[in-house]
Amino acid sequence: MKLLRYGPAGQEKPGLLDANGQVRDLSEHIADLAGDALLPGSIEKLGLINPDSLPLVAGEAQKDLRLGPCVGNVGKFICIGLNYADHAAEAGMDIPSEPVIFNKWTSAIVGPDDDIQVPRNSRKTDWEVELGVIIGQGGSYIEEADALSHIAGFCVVNDVSEREFQIERAGTWDKGKGCDTFGPIGPWLVTPDEVGDFDDLKMWLDVDGKRYQDGSTATMVYKIPHLIAYCSQFMSLQPGDVISTGTPPGVGMGQNPQVYLHGGEVVKLGIEGLGIQTQNVQGG
Amino acid sequence: MKLLRYGPAGQEKPGLLDANGQVRDLSEHIADLAGDALLPGSIEKLGLINPDSLPLVAGEAQKDLRLGPCVGNVGKFICIGLNYADHAAEAGMDIPSEPVIFNKWTSAIVGPDDDIQVPRNSRKTDWEVELGVIIGQGGSYIEEADALSHIAGFCVVNDVSEREFQIERAGTWDKGKGCDTFGPIGPWLVTPDEVGDFDDLKMWLDVDGKRYQDGSTATMVYKIPHLIAYCSQFMSLQPGDVISTGTPPGVGMGQNPQVYLHGGEVVKLGIEGLGIQTQNVQGG
Repeated sequence: MKLLRYGPAGQEKPGLLDANGQVRDLSEHIADLAGDALLPGSIEKLGLINPDSLPLVAGEAQKDLRLGPCVGNVGKFICIGLNYADHAAEAGMDIPSEPVIFNKWTSAIVGPDDDIQVPRNSRKTDWEVELGVIIGQGGSYIEEADALSHIAGFCVVNDVSEREFQIERAGTWDKGKGCDTFGPIGPWLVTPDEVGDFDDLKMWLDVDGKRYQDGSTATMVYKIPHLIAYCSQFMSLQPGDVISTGTPPGVGMGQNPQVYLHGGEVVKLGIEGLGIQTQNVQGG
Repeated sequence: MKLLRYGPAGQEKPGLLDANGQVRDLSEHIADLAGDALLPGSIEKLGLINPDSLPLVAGEAQKDLRLGPCVGNVGKFICIGLNYADHAAEAGMDIPSEPVIFNKWTSAIVGPDDDIQVPRNSRKTDWEVELGVIIGQGGSYIEEADALSHIAGFCVVNDVSEREFQIERAGTWDKGKGCDTFGPIGPWLVTPDEVGDFDDLKMWLDVDGKRYQDGSTATMVYKIPHLIAYCSQFMSLQPGDVISTGTPPGVGMGQNPQVYLHGGEVVKLGIEGLGIQTQNVQGG
């Protein structure tokens, strides 16, 4: 299943993408694609619905539909740093001896095709295509062997990052990771049965048509079951939490010379089976 | 005004502490002490209510009332690191050249007198009494001169911290700051008119009756208007966001030899005019 949220920002409704690529409304079944609606029992019930029985949204005008973030009311937007060996190298950092956890402020979350706003005084706004894991069943001290049962689905994340704010402005990375619009998620929450082998998904990112990132989840250092188990040692996970699992090489900071977003660019990124995001960059 | 939330965890109702120290129910006026109920217009309306007109909660049994976190549905729990010169010294770190921002996961938030749970495998669970600022009117790029108009109120925060997870486990501080129960906030949201000079509030923390922290907000390096303006450069602030403004000296890590919480201790902390928190520590 490909689940999504559509409509104006802050007023999104839950929906489902049918086999013809059309959005159908799920409002009669769940209030939002958020919280308890992501629990295994709820997802299972949604899977029993015949998509043809759901109202088609907006008829001919589907192409103009705005998609919102594919999860509502995210409580924690947890990110894993330096989780692709080649990206660690281009960032000039060692592969960490255990997963690096950092935070994106939840107010950074936007829809997959919403604009990226370069913050004021930014000189180094950068991109990172990442595989996002959306938590269904929450928990603490989750065993690695049980971790997959805690996944509601997967999505594309652009972990937009301001490198000067992140690295050169004292303290943790939090200043450069959670600026507003720095967290496009979606277009869809794709359920695990439809994703298949999440350890072998192609992922890519283009800026103005030039391919910068061209990788695969196959080269992740710490794999998803380990990441879920690991994070849950330090915090409880709740339905709707998102874990973004790191980026492959090809970020702007890793170019020679470095390349950053200043406004006017178009960023396009995707992961095999999880859809495509397209963002216009607005200058700061 | 002293506003609060009372009742079982997850089912708290909004309330107000009257001049006799008794809890009165605000449910007929606001659904929760959260989000838009913290906007200036809403707080102003609450201030016009005659407390005697509000239902008294639980009559004689008030002493058994559980208080919840004094704000519900916190979107961002933003912390400022090393913001007291003497604490930076005891932590063996320099005073930062600009404020250090870090994150506490919102799932760490508990009521002021709830138990602190030492996480599994913890050897270095520590305490930090802090002044919390609760955002009313949100905003981005807030001017320092306007910052005070964005404050709904103040509260006591215990920025409970696992030092090994925070400092010795690779990456940012996030592993050691946001474990469940590591964020007691309350007992009350005290409105600015009642707090008076927030730059000169005594603050203290005892463990098993021994005073470890004995400071004052007077020795903060970066003051509250600056912190609000500063944070809002890197993210938008929303009603109900909490900014915890750093801790004075006297944390366990700063003792010689170091002192940590392992279970069985009682932690008691307070800030002048903002009330007292009392936590029993449960072993990991």
